[in-house]
Amino acid sequence: MASETSRIEAFSDGIFSIAATLLVLELKPPAPNLPFWHGLVAQWPGFAAFLLSFLFIGIMWINHHRLFTHVRRSDDMLLLSNLLLLLGVVWVPYATSLMAQAVTRGNLLDAAILYNGSYLAIALLYNLLFYTCIRRKLVDCDFSAVRNIARSYIIGPSIYALCLAITWWNVPLSLSINAGMALYFLLSPSLRGKRPRA
Amino acid sequence: MASETSRIEAFSDGIFSIAATLLVLELKPPAPNLPFWHGLVAQWPGFAAFLLSFLFIGIMWINHHRLFTHVRRSDDMLLLSNLLLLLGVVWVPYATSLMAQAVTRGNLLDAAILYNGSYLAIALLYNLLFYTCIRRKLVDCDFSAVRNIARSYIIGPSIYALCLAITWWNVPLSLSINAGMALYFLLSPSLRGKRPRA
Amino acid sequence: MASETSRIEAFSDGIFSIAATLLVLELKPPAPNLPFWHGLVAQWPGFAAFLLSFLFIGIMWINHHRLFTHVRRSDDMLLLSNLLLLLGVVWVPYATSLMAQAVTRGNLLDAAILYNGSYLAIALLYNLLFYTCIRRKLVDCDFSAVRNIARSYIIGPSIYALCLAITWWNVPLSLSINAGMALYFLLSPSLRGKRPRA
Amino acid sequence: MASETSRIEAFSDGIFSIAATLLVLELKPPAPNLPFWHGLVAQWPGFAAFLLSFLFIGIMWINHHRLFTHVRRSDDMLLLSNLLLLLGVVWVPYATSLMAQAVTRGNLLDAAILYNGSYLAIALLYNLLFYTCIRRKLVDCDFSAVRNIARSYIIGPSIYALCLAITWWNVPLSLSINAGMALYFLLSPSLRGKRPRA
Repeated sequence: MASETSRIEAFSDGIFSIAATLLVLELKPPAPNLPFWHGLVAQWPGFAAFLLSFLFIGIMWINHHRLFTHVRRSDDMLLLSNLLLLLGVVWVPYATSLMAQAVTRGNLLDAAILYNGSYLAIALLYNLLFYTCIRRKLVDCDFSAVRNIARSYIIGPSIYALCLAITWWNVPLSLSINAGMALYFLLSPSLRGKRPRA
Repeated sequence: MASETSRIEAFSDGIFSIAATLLVLELKPPAPNLPFWHGLVAQWPGFAAFLLSFLFIGIMWINHHRLFTHVRRSDDMLLLSNLLLLLGVVWVPYATSLMAQAVTRGNLLDAAILYNGSYLAIALLYNLLFYTCIRRKLVDCDFSAVRNIARSYIIGPSIYALCLAITWWNVPLSLSINAGMALYFLLSPSLRGKRPRA
Repeated sequence: MASETSRIEAFSDGIFSIAATLLVLELKPPAPNLPFWHGLVAQWPGFAAFLLSFLFIGIMWINHHRLFTHVRRSDDMLLLSNLLLLLGVVWVPYATSLMAQAVTRGNLLDAAILYNGSYLAIALLYNLLFYTCIRRKLVDCDFSAVRNIARSYIIGPSIYALCLAITWWNVPLSLSINAGMALYFLLSPSLRGKRPRA
Repeated sequence: MASETSRIEAFSDGIFSIAATLLVLELKPPAPNLPFWHGLVAQWPGFAAFLLSFLFIGIMWINHHRLFTHVRRSDDMLLLSNLLLLLGVVWVPYATSLMAQAVTRGNLLDAAILYNGSYLAIALLYNLLFYTCIRRKLVDCDFSAVRNIARSYIIGPSIYALCLAITWWNVPLSLSINAGMALYFLLSPSLRGKRPRA
């Protein structure tokens, strides 16, 4: 029923857009004892986390949106797995704020583990949502599109797990791979080329 | 008139999704004088309240959504009772934040009374909305679906009243029953099996 | 063009629902040096302002919604006057927070003047939006419905002006009349009885 | 596909309306050591930045809305350039809050450079979105409307660049030109007269 999934999309769009916008509340004014531009530059981890999290939420929204162009019916497992995914989305501003404070508080490794671990958990929740849709036959039959999405969904958790493992060895590298993932999901030709009717 | 109830749904979806997302603003960074992970663990009441409230708002949204798939017309009493319910939804982040601070401030019983009492009040407001729809004949005639929803609506206030009574005797038990209610409303087969055309 | 006004409604719904939900962020936890329930009771101005502002925003949304069921076309003056009204809506949480702090800071009269003055300004902006719709012939021709709405729109600014004048003489009375206005707009039979096709 | 662009619009509407509403959280209560009205007046930069940013976001929303009435198809470059524009929108409350604190912190010039520079960047991102739509032929063929929009889009970055240059010479003048731009975009007859079917 079209109106049923459309209201799920409306609620999800609300959560995605609010979580993305609340990120700005985590940006703090520069320390008053520094010159203005030095104070801004000293806050680079906050800006980097803001940028990365905004792109991540935006890309999650795009993928959610792509998936739901194929969803034709809703059931309770879909509602539940979608709700769990949205819980992960709402968690992102908190993980981001801990990351932003990590440099000044001297716990960059711990915060990066939590941050990359959160992304891994969200990628797994995405797969839960995706397989709920497939197994319960809630999507239409456009298998080639679904197979392409599936491939990128399987890649997600693997790379985020790698990111998390690398964190103990090299924090900036793990964050760079994380950012690279965001660009990959945005620009991946397999995703771009095979999306149906758009 | 379809467009009339659809705009009520849009406004309600906005309130539900914003209230659910604002919960994250109540999560505080771990105390700086503790090791990072100890500091996070010491904040467990905040995380538990965040999780419980998010599920509660999500489930309220699902039930609201189910009810409105049956609502065909709107009138002023519907607008008013829906507005009162939304007032309860907006209240949730405040009750959650008091709960989250309760352990450190040593008033767990008081905060739990307010928290469980708020849930009882919201369950009653849900029933007000439901009976407004029934008595004023705003729903379509799918009586079996409505009867199933009605049964679960009657159960709600009773169990939340029980939760509230148990609070004086045992706070963690009352919160566990509260969480159990959330799972019941999510997974109840009577709700899942009889929902029409979905 | 339906899709044009529908997107104005979506943007407006977003502003209304977010402003209503942000009110909860102005509720502060009770002072830690007081017993829990005394601390809550001592914050009654905050709760009263929260309740009044939530109802006010909710009723403004209902009236906005009623007006737009008649709007068939959009033009730039409509966009501009709607934007000015939304500016007033966004202002409400700030006026509310000043009102909530007024008792502890000892400037109840000043804050009430600002609060009632804000409501008067918003009522005038509502009339600007309404007459923009009428004069530029953006509404459909259901004149009896429009005349009923017009009557209540004229009453609004007059009573809010009275409220503002009474503030200097008696603050609680002015706030009570303000709350009475909210109930009048919710329950007014002229509004309820003559609304078309709903 | 209509449903595809409509969901982009829903997500964008969410971001625009939330960013506009979050501006109110940057308004601080007047300093308690001043008389109430003096305290409010002393905060004029905060109110001016609030007003200017609200109008700016509102006008960006109107232009976004006008552009999307012509967009018929979506592709990944559209999603990406729209996401970058929304990143700029989410940034506005932060730039606004720095502007609001600038008078008391004595760094008005620096904050105004950041503020006007942010507007220039956003105007450029708007052009990126616009030319993405044109070059990838995502819009319908109403060339005269598109040409009118294009003209005002080219004007935008030029004047914001001028604003930014003037900032070093005269901060209040640069902000006045910025506000004038907002009014121009709202009331421009070329935009008002040629918009099709509205």
